[in-house]
This record gives sequence, C-alpha cells and structure tokens, in this order.
Amino acid sequence: MMFQRQFLLQSFLLLSLTTATAKRLNTIPRLSPIGPRVWRDQPDKTTLGEFDGEDFETFFHNQTLDHFNYRPESYDKFPQRYLINSKYWGGANVSAPILVYLGAEEPIDEDLAAVGFLVDNAVQFNSLLVFIEHRYYGKSIPFGSREEALKDASKLGYFNSAQAIADYAAIIIHIKETLRAQYSPVIVIGGSYGGMLASWFRLKYPHIALGALASSAPILYFDDITPQDGYYSIVTKDFREASETCYQTIKTSWSEIDELASKPDGLSMLSKKFKTCTPLADASELKDHLDTMYASAAQYNRPPTYPVNEVCKGIDGGGFGDDILSRIFGGLVAYKGNLSCYVNAHTDPSETTVGWRWQTCSEMAIPIGVGNNSMFPPDPFDLEDYIENCKSLYGVPTRPHWITTYYGGHSIKLILQRFASNIIFSNGLRDPYSSGGVLENISDTVVAVKTVNGSHCLDILFAKETDPEWLVTQRKIEIKIIKEWINKYYVDLTMF
Amino acid sequence: MMFQRQFLLQSFLLLSLTTATAKRLNTIPRLSPIGPRVWRDQPDKTTLGEFDGEDFETFFHNQTLDHFNYRPESYDKFPQRYLINSKYWGGANVSAPILVYLGAEEPIDEDLAAVGFLVDNAVQFNSLLVFIEHRYYGKSIPFGSREEALKDASKLGYFNSAQAIADYAAIIIHIKETLRAQYSPVIVIGGSYGGMLASWFRLKYPHIALGALASSAPILYFDDITPQDGYYSIVTKDFREASETCYQTIKTSWSEIDELASKPDGLSMLSKKFKTCTPLADASELKDHLDTMYASAAQYNRPPTYPVNEVCKGIDGGGFGDDILSRIFGGLVAYKGNLSCYVNAHTDPSETTVGWRWQTCSEMAIPIGVGNNSMFPPDPFDLEDYIENCKSLYGVPTRPHWITTYYGGHSIKLILQRFASNIIFSNGLRDPYSSGGVLENISDTVVAVKTVNGSHCLDILFAKETDPEWLVTQRKIEIKIIKEWINKYYVDLTMF
Repeated sequence: MMFQRQFLLQSFLLLSLTTATAKRLNTIPRLSPIGPRVWRDQPDKTTLGEFDGEDFETFFHNQTLDHFNYRPESYDKFPQRYLINSKYWGGANVSAPILVYLGAEEPIDEDLAAVGFLVDNAVQFNSLLVFIEHRYYGKSIPFGSREEALKDASKLGYFNSAQAIADYAAIIIHIKETLRAQYSPVIVIGGSYGGMLASWFRLKYPHIALGALASSAPILYFDDITPQDGYYSIVTKDFREASETCYQTIKTSWSEIDELASKPDGLSMLSKKFKTCTPLADASELKDHLDTMYASAAQYNRPPTYPVNEVCKGIDGGGFGDDILSRIFGGLVAYKGNLSCYVNAHTDPSETTVGWRWQTCSEMAIPIGVGNNSMFPPDPFDLEDYIENCKSLYGVPTRPHWITTYYGGHSIKLILQRFASNIIFSNGLRDPYSSGGVLENISDTVVAVKTVNGSHCLDILFAKETDPEWLVTQRKIEIKIIKEWINKYYVDLTMF
Repeated sequence: MMFQRQFLLQSFLLLSLTTATAKRLNTIPRLSPIGPRVWRDQPDKTTLGEFDGEDFETFFHNQTLDHFNYRPESYDKFPQRYLINSKYWGGANVSAPILVYLGAEEPIDEDLAAVGFLVDNAVQFNSLLVFIEHRYYGKSIPFGSREEALKDASKLGYFNSAQAIADYAAIIIHIKETLRAQYSPVIVIGGSYGGMLASWFRLKYPHIALGALASSAPILYFDDITPQDGYYSIVTKDFREASETCYQTIKTSWSEIDELASKPDGLSMLSKKFKTCTPLADASELKDHLDTMYASAAQYNRPPTYPVNEVCKGIDGGGFGDDILSRIFGGLVAYKGNLSCYVNAHTDPSETTVGWRWQTCSEMAIPIGVGNNSMFPPDPFDLEDYIENCKSLYGVPTRPHWITTYYGGHSIKLILQRFASNIIFSNGLRDPYSSGGVLENISDTVVAVKTVNGSHCLDILFAKETDPEWLVTQRKIEIKIIKEWINKYYVDLTMF
C-alpha cells in the first residue's frame, strides 16, 4: 500500500530557516482526521455507508471578515463554503436534529470523502447534515484569492480559531433561520484540530450547539498542561509494542546516520542508501523525514493494515540488508511502497501545510518536544526559539498563552465539573495526540470515550466492514450518549 | 437636592443628526450603576463601609490591542488601569478569594467611589479586591490619546465587549500569576453594562471566574427577546404607582407642548415657561430632555429620596401654576433643584456619553421603543433608522445581532439550565432595565435575586445606614450564595 505524504514542510520551510532552528516547526506532526490520503490513491471499497456526494448541496455564506472588531475593514465579506444534505432530515416541525461537521485545516472536500460519522448515522438521527469549511481553506478564502489572503500577517491576521468558530456560529444561525428550525438541536462534530473547535464551540456557544463530539482533540497540549514529550513517548510506545527489535533498530539508527554523514562523502553514501530524489544537503533532511514517517504511522495506525506494523515488518524483515540503515530503508519502502526515489521528492506544499504553519505559529503553539525516554534523539521544545522562527517567517510573534487564556485547559476537571455539559472527548490511546486529550470523565455529561487500540480520529471516519469490534462499540457508545442529550433536550423543550 | 445630569446627548449629537432621526439615539437611557452624581456634588456621609481610596494601589497592564487578530497592528499595546486592595486578603497559601469589579462605560474612579459591594464585604470574604477599568475609558486609552483613540471607526473598532472581557481575562491571569494565587477563586462583579460583562465573563471564561454577580444586567434586551416597550412601560408604571395624577399630567403634557410650540411665537413662550438656557430650536429639545429626566428618575429611583416621588411632588404640588406645563416645570425644578436656567444648559459630553454612543452604535444596540400603553408618545424602535444614524455618525453600520450570536439570550432557561453555573442576576423591579433582565432562576446555581422596590444597581453600591430592610436582605442573600459557591469550590479543591 502506498502512502502519499502530504505534510512534509521541509522543502518549503528550509527556504527561509536554517535546518537547526527549523527543526521543531518542521516536525510538529500535523493535526487532521484524515492523515495520508489512502482513500484518494486507492478508493476504499469496503465502506459500509452509502456515501453519495450528490446528496450534498453546496452553499456560500457571505461571511464577516472580523467578528471582534468594527474597523471598516472588519466588515469585509468573503464567501464561506458549506454543504447541506437534507435527505434524511425529519424536518423543522418535529425539531429534528442537525449534525454539523466543523471543518478544520483542509478543504472541506477531503472531509466529505472521509468523515463518515454524519452520513453513517443520518438515518437513525433523522438529521440534517452540514459540513462547513474553515476560513482560509478550500473555497473559503478572504481577500479574493489565496495568494492575496496568504500574503502576509496583515492578511493572515484574521485566520484563527476564535474567528473560525464565530463563523460557524453565524452559519448555523443562518441555516436554522432559513429552515425555520429554531428548536432543532445541533450537535457539532470535529476531529483533531476540528475536534478542539467542536469542544470549544460547545463551551463558547452553548446557545447554538446542544453538544459536541470532539474526536482526538488534544485540547490540553498547550502551555504547560501536558508534558512536552507526551507525543513522542506514545509514538515510541506504539513501535515498541509492535516490535522490540524494530524499536531498538530505530533508536540506534539516528547515531548511525550521523556517523555516516560525518564521514567524507558520507552524505552522498546516505543519499544512495536511501535512494533520495536529490542528494541530501544535510543529515537532518533524512532524519526529519524519518521522524515524520514514524510519527505519522503511529498517529494514523489504523486497522486493518496498521502502518506501524507495516514499517516494523519492513525494518525487522531486513529485505534490503541486515545493517541498521538498510533495515530503516526497508521500513521506508514498506511504508511508502516501491518508488523511484525517496525522502526529498519535490512536492508542492498542500493547503494544509501552508495554512497550519500559520496557525501553529500564531496561536496553536503545541509544545511538542522529545524527551530522554524515546526512540528519538532528545530534542526539548524551545519556546523562545519557536517564537523567533515564527517571527522571522511572518513578522509577528506567537501568542503561546492565548489558547489557554481564551479556552482554558488548566485544572480542567476542577473547572468544568460544575460548568458545561454534553461534550464527548473521544481518543484512541495509540494516537500520540491522545497524550493531550481529555481521557477521564469530567462530569456525567462531559465524558471521555477511549479505546486502547485506537488511533487518530478513527471513530468519525466512515464505518467499514473490516472495523474491529472495539471500534464498532466505540461508535455505538458515542451515538447512545448523543441520543441521550437529544432526548433530554426534547423533554426540556416540551416543558419550555 | 441637586442632580447634575451627565448623559444628555442632544447638544453633541444634534450637530450631526437631524432631530427626528436622532430621537432614539438621544434618548436611549444610559446604562451605569451610578447614575446622576449625587455623591460627588454632595458627599454621602451615611455610608457604613470604611472606604478609603488609599488602600488601593494603581497598576497599569500592558494590554494587547486586539486579542482576536494577528495583524501586526493587533499586537499594539496600551496601558490598562487596574487597582488592587490587599488589606483584607487572606493570601495565596489559603487560596483566599479575589473579588474583581469589571469596569464599564466610565472611568474606574467613579466606580471606586460608588460601588461599595467589594469593600463592604472584603473582611468577611478575606478577599483581595480588584477594580479594572474598561478599555477606552479613563486612563485606559489606546493609541496614545483619547483624541486619537476616538477619531474614527478605524481606531474605535477595537472598542467592544469581546475585547473588553478578554482584557479582563488577561489581567486576572496576570494578577493570579504575580501573586501565585492560582487556586484562589475569582468572583466577578459588575453593574448594568458591567453586569452584562460579568455574566458573559463567567459564561466565556469559567476557567478564570468561579462566579459572577451581575447587577441590573439587561442581557435579554437585545434582538427580539424582550418587548421593545419594556423599558418605558416600567418608567410609566413607576410614575403611576407614585401618583396617578402625576402620571396623568405627564401623559397629557406632550400634546400640550406640541400645541404651544405650533403657535406663532410658541417656542419662545415654551422657552420662557421652562426657563431654558437658550431659546428652544424645536419642541423635541424640551421633550427629549423631559423624557430622559423621567427615565433617569425611574432608573435611579433610590432610597431614601426616591427621585420619582420628588418629581411627582413637584408636578402634583403645582407650585409654579396649576396648568399642565407649569406642573411639568415644577417637576423639573423638583428634580434639578433651583437653577438659573434649565433644559439646554451647555455641558461638555462626558466620557460615558461619547464612549457609550459608539458602543450602542456598533454592537450594544438595545432596541428601546415606546409603545402605546405608556405616559410617553408612542415611538417604536426603528432598526433601519437606527443603523442609518450610526452609519452616518461613524461610517460603519451596527451589527444588531452580534450580541445574541456571541452571548446568546434566546430561550435562556432552555439553554443554560443544563449548562453553566454560579451566576446571580440581581434586579430591582422598579428599574426600567429590569425588563431586559433575568428575573427567574435558571438552575440551582444560575439564579435571579430581585427586589420589588429596587432600582438600578442598588445592591452593589455602598451600604448605608438609611438602606431599607429589603435592600439589606438582598445583599445578604447574594453574599450567602457567593459563599456557597466558594465553599463548594474549596471542597472540590481538596479532592482535586
């Protein structure tokens, strides 16, 4: 199986950053429910649902550029894309539910084709389905063009989470007014960064969403709440559990790479060994690539193939030679498939790559570092360095404490156990980002649903025949909880 | 007793608006805990508390201009004033409480001298006291000077409630960090517009404030939630309950004024009758002035003098003649005291007048109209007209639905009964703004505390010897509730 990687930032970033300072920006794993685009390269025939893109009608909302400011420019509008599927809806007169997927750092088309939770459950909820695209992605671009919108901080400044969820508020209100569905309960659903948005949306706009399903949302991976090494500790654990020898090989490989690279003509030998598309300019080019591959394999370690197992089979199999580096190359081939070259193939940076880089630099500063107990070389997160890099990229510094200022996160159980309701935080414990997730129930209705073997955002993807029992069960639990919210709401509504 | 009025907008506004279109902007009653400055003109010697301004130390926070945007200009800073009184604080090591007064549309000095709730209760709460000034008022001015900050919409755009409560979040976090008081519970307190901010702060920042006392906060006077005639209906009721004849006289007076004004030389006769400071240019000048006087008397209808009674004594007494207009003039004199002239004395517009005009024009569009069953001439609220006026004043239109989009308000019990906690909505039912207040309990901990005879924000003013029993009781109830929140929190904290 071939995995096409879409989130390598190196080639793009290295233009403006030195390798050393770019390290953490390069290798901060992307956040997305989708991950490598297996289904695009190889359409998945085993989906259970009856997904049909034609059931969705596309609309554009005339969206306000800046909800929190009244400068004349704040009133500028941009077209924001959203899609509605009303095939299964019970209608406004019975206040049938509305499921809303909150788009994240990708064009909404990608989610429509992958996030099946809404379509799969539309019939049993009699629900209207809505997918809303996040500002600055896909066709939801301010300032007339992507080029203009992404030009510099003066245009990018409006590109942030608070504006994004205010967009969602405006669109959901508009839809409910248009359909005269004032009392239809709205459930917002999102994965990864979109999962954060979903939980934050319920917290900030409880008058618009009755509840939220926040899948694999690392809302605690900010500031000093979660240990910085949480992410890579789980990547390491995933590999070690898959194969102790694989883990040991990877752990040893970094110094082997450095050693070879430091020899005369070493980079050229490394380039040959790893069949790089262009000669390596620096060993870190290779190491960052491998780092990202291991992280991605762990994050999207999905049934039925389980990429971590695939990589380890390649490494342990030793089909390219018994030495450490040949084994690592075997892992690379196992993950990527047979390609003409590896590591530094030229790819244009995706919308996600470009957009998420701004988002992580401005506010979504997730402090991921590598600690001493991992299969990676230690590499603590350096906030000052991070901010300096962002400043040199965009001219404006990161606001590393804003997310916890606006959304909270510290002592979350103490704070929310007597405030808020109706949020599911779902996590797969093999997902490295689960280290920043909510893993324990906060109250009766703010709950954690976790699976020991799950990976990133599995639960909201299309159900498949090959889904293991624990995944089927996880989804059933989530649906049961959401139904309880809705039923309780209907009782409240009759007494209102 | 002389009441110095500070919120007549006419002289200022009429420069740019015709009388007709200016009507609703002119006469929308101000929102403030304080009202006419009785205590400034005539220091109140009967205060029970031991208020001593010297116990407060003044600080300035280096505040971010725009919390919700990352344009380079958004990072500009301005000095935001806040004051701390630590005389009564139990300290960080016992997590003693912090009471924070959220400033509203006035310089914070005015609140310090009038809002006694914090100082009066500091001893029994062992609490730190904090007063924070609202951006664009007092000494908390962006762009270097008031002149520059208020220049036009491009500078005023940052002047809004969402930015203001984000300011408060940043300052409270800063104070708690500085004092290492991470676990000290924070109770936010505000009155009128500041009361809205307090309740919204608890809703948006539950991780920063444990609870809120929102005094006389008409959070439901937006959009179509509250009948537009709510405000003037209560003004009317207050007068009618004070004196049926007074009410009848006022009700009849408007047509009398119009009739006289329409006669040849009528305006000159009216000017003479009402001893105006300059000749009336239009009858509406007088009518708006009276409208505002009645509204203000009702809103700040405080013990022990009860201005509505004073005005009615003046009207019913007929000391200036038995005819309708002489009686009305008698009411004016009773309210204002013996002045050399009335109605259109030149006064420079206060900071509140200027600032609140922008705030009501941009987002705080409180749709107050006059219905058919009042002592005032019917004058329905006209949103289109309102927006046009604001546009002509500032070049940008009102966003009349933003407050309910961001903060909610519709079906508030249905929404919040299973979400949120720890908010007191206190109201005096004689306060015209109570028509837009929360008057029924929403849940066990989101509660309404109301007094039949209370007026605007009475409960948070300094306690006085002359306070009636019901006011003393109201404050006791509020303190008991806040203590329950704090005690429950301390129990949670020990189990955390």
